[in-house]
Amino acid sequence: MHFNRTRVSVAVVGCGTVGGATVAVLTRDRAPIAARSGVELNLAYVVEKNAAQAEKAGVDRAIVTDNLEPALNDGAVRIVVELVGGTGIAREIVEKSLRAGKHVVTANKALLAKHGPELFAIARENAVSLAFEASCGGGIPIVRALYDGLIANEIEAIYGIVNGTCNYILSKMITDGESYAEALADAQEIGLAEADPGLDVGGIDSAHKIAIMGALAFGQRVAFDSIPVVGIDSLDLTDVLFAQRLGYVVKLLAVAEKRGGDVSLRVEPAFIGEQHPLAWVSGPFNAVSVYGNRTGHTMYYGRGAGGSPTASAVVADVVSIATGVYERFFDRCAHWPDRAVESPILPLDDTATRFYIRTNVTDSPGTLAQIAAIFGRHGISIASVHQDEIADEAAETVVPVVVTLHTARRISAKQAVAEIDALSTTGDRSTIIPIVDEHAECVS
Amino acid sequence: MHFNRTRVSVAVVGCGTVGGATVAVLTRDRAPIAARSGVELNLAYVVEKNAAQAEKAGVDRAIVTDNLEPALNDGAVRIVVELVGGTGIAREIVEKSLRAGKHVVTANKALLAKHGPELFAIARENAVSLAFEASCGGGIPIVRALYDGLIANEIEAIYGIVNGTCNYILSKMITDGESYAEALADAQEIGLAEADPGLDVGGIDSAHKIAIMGALAFGQRVAFDSIPVVGIDSLDLTDVLFAQRLGYVVKLLAVAEKRGGDVSLRVEPAFIGEQHPLAWVSGPFNAVSVYGNRTGHTMYYGRGAGGSPTASAVVADVVSIATGVYERFFDRCAHWPDRAVESPILPLDDTATRFYIRTNVTDSPGTLAQIAAIFGRHGISIASVHQDEIADEAAETVVPVVVTLHTARRISAKQAVAEIDALSTTGDRSTIIPIVDEHAECVS
Repeated sequence: MHFNRTRVSVAVVGCGTVGGATVAVLTRDRAPIAARSGVELNLAYVVEKNAAQAEKAGVDRAIVTDNLEPALNDGAVRIVVELVGGTGIAREIVEKSLRAGKHVVTANKALLAKHGPELFAIARENAVSLAFEASCGGGIPIVRALYDGLIANEIEAIYGIVNGTCNYILSKMITDGESYAEALADAQEIGLAEADPGLDVGGIDSAHKIAIMGALAFGQRVAFDSIPVVGIDSLDLTDVLFAQRLGYVVKLLAVAEKRGGDVSLRVEPAFIGEQHPLAWVSGPFNAVSVYGNRTGHTMYYGRGAGGSPTASAVVADVVSIATGVYERFFDRCAHWPDRAVESPILPLDDTATRFYIRTNVTDSPGTLAQIAAIFGRHGISIASVHQDEIADEAAETVVPVVVTLHTARRISAKQAVAEIDALSTTGDRSTIIPIVDEHAECVS
Repeated sequence: MHFNRTRVSVAVVGCGTVGGATVAVLTRDRAPIAARSGVELNLAYVVEKNAAQAEKAGVDRAIVTDNLEPALNDGAVRIVVELVGGTGIAREIVEKSLRAGKHVVTANKALLAKHGPELFAIARENAVSLAFEASCGGGIPIVRALYDGLIANEIEAIYGIVNGTCNYILSKMITDGESYAEALADAQEIGLAEADPGLDVGGIDSAHKIAIMGALAFGQRVAFDSIPVVGIDSLDLTDVLFAQRLGYVVKLLAVAEKRGGDVSLRVEPAFIGEQHPLAWVSGPFNAVSVYGNRTGHTMYYGRGAGGSPTASAVVADVVSIATGVYERFFDRCAHWPDRAVESPILPLDDTATRFYIRTNVTDSPGTLAQIAAIFGRHGISIASVHQDEIADEAAETVVPVVVTLHTARRISAKQAVAEIDALSTTGDRSTIIPIVDEHAECVS
């Protein structure tokens, strides 16, 4: 064609699932990507200790090395792609590359959530940029939506289902009535959960992602360790099934909300109303709902993990850097982590939401009245009460009383529940799970 | 802040629903948009014959004019926003502005679907660009997904619900059992359908949008008038309700598919499986499913029309031009309408899909056998048959026999149905509606 073409050399560091897929895209799709984008991407180095793994991905043996230095010293290399993961060696690779004047593309959410501000600042000092589309939604172009497509909006809230492992496990519990342990074992068997699934099921991976998206959406960032995180590993099948009965679906939800000047970030299982588009997101798929003051609700859906989808996001960043597009965003936008203002997080206790509460109180005359009275004293309105019928002869057995509440401050709900738990003769504690209805759209 | 700021003057032409909202965003949100994007947008001219309408939108009377010339002659104005609509005067405005060396932002799908290639070429001749995020999905940043976020993908198919009026009417038919005429009247009453709803319910608006997205996705474009279009105006409530019984939802679907070298574009009502994310899109919301060879299925959901959401997309384009980002895409990407290769459309008869067929044959002994035999002769497999029980005394009445088919070429299905219709003693013709299951993801 007659229009401008750019040729850019790229080094990829790390050749695991995502690295292997990235290398495959850069090799096999070089011609069609050049035809579409006007950029010829030249994979010049694959830095990987395990050469066999690199060759399996179809890489020419001649470009595989276990040493980053040659790539950093090669003036033709403009972009280093870090796909090693973690916050140890990966941090060194990113820092070194930036200081060597290379733009960096990464899929590393842990690194950005914890050290983003320093790394962005180092990029700027060295007049290069740091791109990270692949870090939040795998193949879903959600980071671009925040810094580009929705730029005319004040973002009010982000609700994300951003961990495919958790979503798969929850879907299995819902559709097959499996316990958490059974569903996890299933996920491990098909390779969707790692042998050590802690980062996923414990909610940390989701917290990394919402920390990055929250900073980008609000221009405010919070200390990563201050984000309250509850995983799905303590979730009881009873509550998953109760959700269904009541017209909800349990999802691990990553939330970033701004109300007035207060920023709240959190990760926890939540009941999502069946009418909410996020309730439909099942299996390994992810989705992110973004509420802007002009667009109202927009949602971005797709595969949040896996080699090829994540490679799609990585390569989009490489192209964006090669065309000079990304640098312009990076220079001008105010919301990058290093420019985002450090903000205290709104204490979780001060957030307000609706709640599902399952008590384990002995069913004796007057129990319901006592429960209702306790909520009343705390100024909390009950939205619905559910207690299954039990046979006369089974009286004095423990039956769950399930209550849903209208919007209440979390601290009030917790205090009320503590008083209710004091009524229990068994000592069992109640379960409290927030309920998320469709967020009010404040389209102005 | 310490980083680069750009100040750009903008002229907005047309102050209707979208124009008024755009002008409001540019005026009221000037400071926050500048803070986020690094671009100060200066609304310098509002070109609108009806000055009262412009003032209603909160515009300073001093910048309202009924003449485009001053804006074109003002060297400070870099961007003209065309929000007049239609293919008459709007075309002149866009052409004149491009020739005057102004970048143009438009929400005008009719104009782009019909005259896109010429207009893009004029932009290039004059070293400016033409941006159109608002033309396909209102507030949903779908155009950017195609030229940026998904650039590493070969796009295989786009399935879109891209007309909010139609989707609202269909949702009303489904949930309230209203006829098409009743649901249309409802939509008109709440201002969601225009007094003359022809472009919407006839499917033409959806065809405009899929023509633009198809060209952008495949780098191939088809003559607009060659796109087969069926609207929802001939849809029978019977079939909408049958869909539900069979586990489907009827949607007006805009499709762009590429199989081998063949491009198929079409707009028609379709049965969508209840498990498909597009089936969940209800009321005035729109969504576009994009199938890429690396991402697999991604979907983009939001408000496809309305002042503020559309203004969000318009202003995102204005910012993108002001920062110099959009020009880079515009220069390099091969898939813009003027570069897309003109391709013949795959004849509709040659497309293959599953089908729902409702016959109106007299229920007499042997009818079902005859129907089955006809499909068999055409090499078509029946997936399911549904015929409701009728009382003995009602024999010889006309009862619908509903059949769903496995994938068949459309011409074969049509020929078989013509033979079945020849069996009818009433002369009523059968209804044929395609069935869309989840598109196979060919993640490579």
